[in-house]
Amino acid sequence: MKVYLDHAATTYVDEDVLQAMMPYFVDTFGNASSQHQYGQASLNAVDRAREQVAAAICARPSEIYFTSGGTEADNWAIKGIAHAYQHKGKHLITTVVEHHAVLHPMEQLEKEGFEVTYLPVHADGRVDLEALKKAIRPDTILISVMFANNEIGTIQPIAEIGKIAKEHKIFFHTDAVQAMGACPIDVKELGIDLLSMSAHKFYGPKGVGALYIRTGVKPQKLITGGAQERTMRGGTLNTPGIVGMGEALSKAVRDMEKNNEHIRALRDYFVAEVLKCIPDVVVNGGMEHRLPNNANISFKFIEGESILLSLDMDGIAASSGSACSSGSLDPSHVLLATGLPVEYAHGSIRFTFGKSTTKEAVDYTLECLKNTIEKLRAWSPLYADHIRR
Amino acid sequence: MKVYLDHAATTYVDEDVLQAMMPYFVDTFGNASSQHQYGQASLNAVDRAREQVAAAICARPSEIYFTSGGTEADNWAIKGIAHAYQHKGKHLITTVVEHHAVLHPMEQLEKEGFEVTYLPVHADGRVDLEALKKAIRPDTILISVMFANNEIGTIQPIAEIGKIAKEHKIFFHTDAVQAMGACPIDVKELGIDLLSMSAHKFYGPKGVGALYIRTGVKPQKLITGGAQERTMRGGTLNTPGIVGMGEALSKAVRDMEKNNEHIRALRDYFVAEVLKCIPDVVVNGGMEHRLPNNANISFKFIEGESILLSLDMDGIAASSGSACSSGSLDPSHVLLATGLPVEYAHGSIRFTFGKSTTKEAVDYTLECLKNTIEKLRAWSPLYADHIRR
Repeated sequence: MKVYLDHAATTYVDEDVLQAMMPYFVDTFGNASSQHQYGQASLNAVDRAREQVAAAICARPSEIYFTSGGTEADNWAIKGIAHAYQHKGKHLITTVVEHHAVLHPMEQLEKEGFEVTYLPVHADGRVDLEALKKAIRPDTILISVMFANNEIGTIQPIAEIGKIAKEHKIFFHTDAVQAMGACPIDVKELGIDLLSMSAHKFYGPKGVGALYIRTGVKPQKLITGGAQERTMRGGTLNTPGIVGMGEALSKAVRDMEKNNEHIRALRDYFVAEVLKCIPDVVVNGGMEHRLPNNANISFKFIEGESILLSLDMDGIAASSGSACSSGSLDPSHVLLATGLPVEYAHGSIRFTFGKSTTKEAVDYTLECLKNTIEKLRAWSPLYADHIRR
Repeated sequence: MKVYLDHAATTYVDEDVLQAMMPYFVDTFGNASSQHQYGQASLNAVDRAREQVAAAICARPSEIYFTSGGTEADNWAIKGIAHAYQHKGKHLITTVVEHHAVLHPMEQLEKEGFEVTYLPVHADGRVDLEALKKAIRPDTILISVMFANNEIGTIQPIAEIGKIAKEHKIFFHTDAVQAMGACPIDVKELGIDLLSMSAHKFYGPKGVGALYIRTGVKPQKLITGGAQERTMRGGTLNTPGIVGMGEALSKAVRDMEKNNEHIRALRDYFVAEVLKCIPDVVVNGGMEHRLPNNANISFKFIEGESILLSLDMDGIAASSGSACSSGSLDPSHVLLATGLPVEYAHGSIRFTFGKSTTKEAVDYTLECLKNTIEKLRAWSPLYADHIRR
């Protein structure tokens, strides 16, 4: 049996989405910036997708800028605001649990002379709002806090952060890559000035994303060239990708409740069974403010990589954290930030469920997981010590 | 009849290319950074595409970095080299006929305190090599000259520029977006350190491109995040797009001679017929060092936009210059740089031919064009003056 439980890393393209994209590869292939009929047909499709994306977050179409994905959107938002508003101050605030697409631009800015405060999080992964308030300085120009965490699924108190940012007239950016399609988002209500998203996380194609930029906010450009995207982002528009993104997001928002219900039920069943059947496990992140698709579990006394390898041989795909830092043997910076001891962090696996995940697949996974953990612990000198004690 | 003569703006995706891409949307959809089977299957496909792209320019696979397109590649190369090597000097050299994807990053750098020399070109659009040699200073760190011009098709003396750059130990970047698939390119032989390309110009998909970075050259990162592309460019790899790019470039290089021969014959026939049948026209750019697919023609006494509109109503797609600056009514910076008077530049049309262009399509275009020019000139007070004189 083949089981894919790594939907936070990427999802397949939904069949409806692919069907919507197909005409734009060969038939309606014009450059959306061209004035002729070929170009205008592509532009109409892009316009429609822009409306779909805007509607999904209660923004205006003119506030949506298509990018190559979430990472470009994060880089643009953070470096763009820093460079455009540095005359107002050179202090930025973020959290220790952000994706590297946020943390690495922050580090680049530190090298340029900006100062960055990295907020701590509580054990459930939620940002400490008191620490946020204390971190704000007169020269703070940006707060960047992710909507939901990619490793442990924690949903941040976005409305509260938006309110604090507004009170202090500081721009608020959120990396919503993991939240889109799973959380209802109204950027106006939540006080969000910039929001990053990526289509391949909600059954859209890879290689396309968007940055929402509230009207009046003017980040410096990251990719300049042609006059595309109201001169804000150069590069021929990826019409099939953009069409796919609009369709995927529209469908994800329409089916959000139904999908979340299905996914949450399977995830909760999975977590309950793991806790019941496997000793010495910890579920990471709280269960209250959590994405429905995410289960992150630490198995004491074993290495996550060994578990994954064994599951992979059983046909089951899961992950030891972010796919983007795969290959690294360091324990996850997110898990360590929640206070999880290193020895637990090393044996942590992220299972992320999708709309097509079945009960059979979960049952098969549970069975394989039980066997895997038993087998690996039987080989573990650490576990032998633990049993003897 | 529908005729598409705007292949320099974008091309349709070749059917073989689309077939190669299709498995990577729904079936083999894993994140190429994931360690499990789903991820490894995608990674294998990306590796193969990287080899195809590298082989096309005689580079090593490890020297190819996938991007979202040519504009990102240009931005990365230029701003990346400037920022990484500014301790060696803050002077850059480019030409007045570059694409905006080169000119705008240069302007951004000027605002940061870099100095840029914009080389003039001869009447055929070729860069003045003597001017290049004179422009070089001890603090020059980068020469960026496009391989072939997007508006008038002029192929630059790349080998000579590469030699001059090497002699002075200056990095040489070339925007080869228009040349890929039309010109044989050996980056080692030509002395190129960085080369930008974009898949949708050679019958590959939109939204994917690449930057060749010679081993040892270390531009600063433009998009940072996950550890993708040997940590040099963050963002989940666009597997279907990358597969399409590899396949498209491989096919374009394999069929280069055959396609060029077909395209050149049609272009030459078209130009000869225009010169024969329509008075007061100028062919822009020289015919010797020129892309086989490009014909750029100025029709005196009329506006290019009117010609395009009329052709569009006949079902014919051409362009008044770069699609990326469509909507602008300024005369082309490229045409003005070749010394073409403004009144000619305003009435200039770019026809760019493709591998599927037929003799029938060209004949239909010639007929419509003759009628269009006659009709528009009949309405033109300028032309009436000209005739009377």
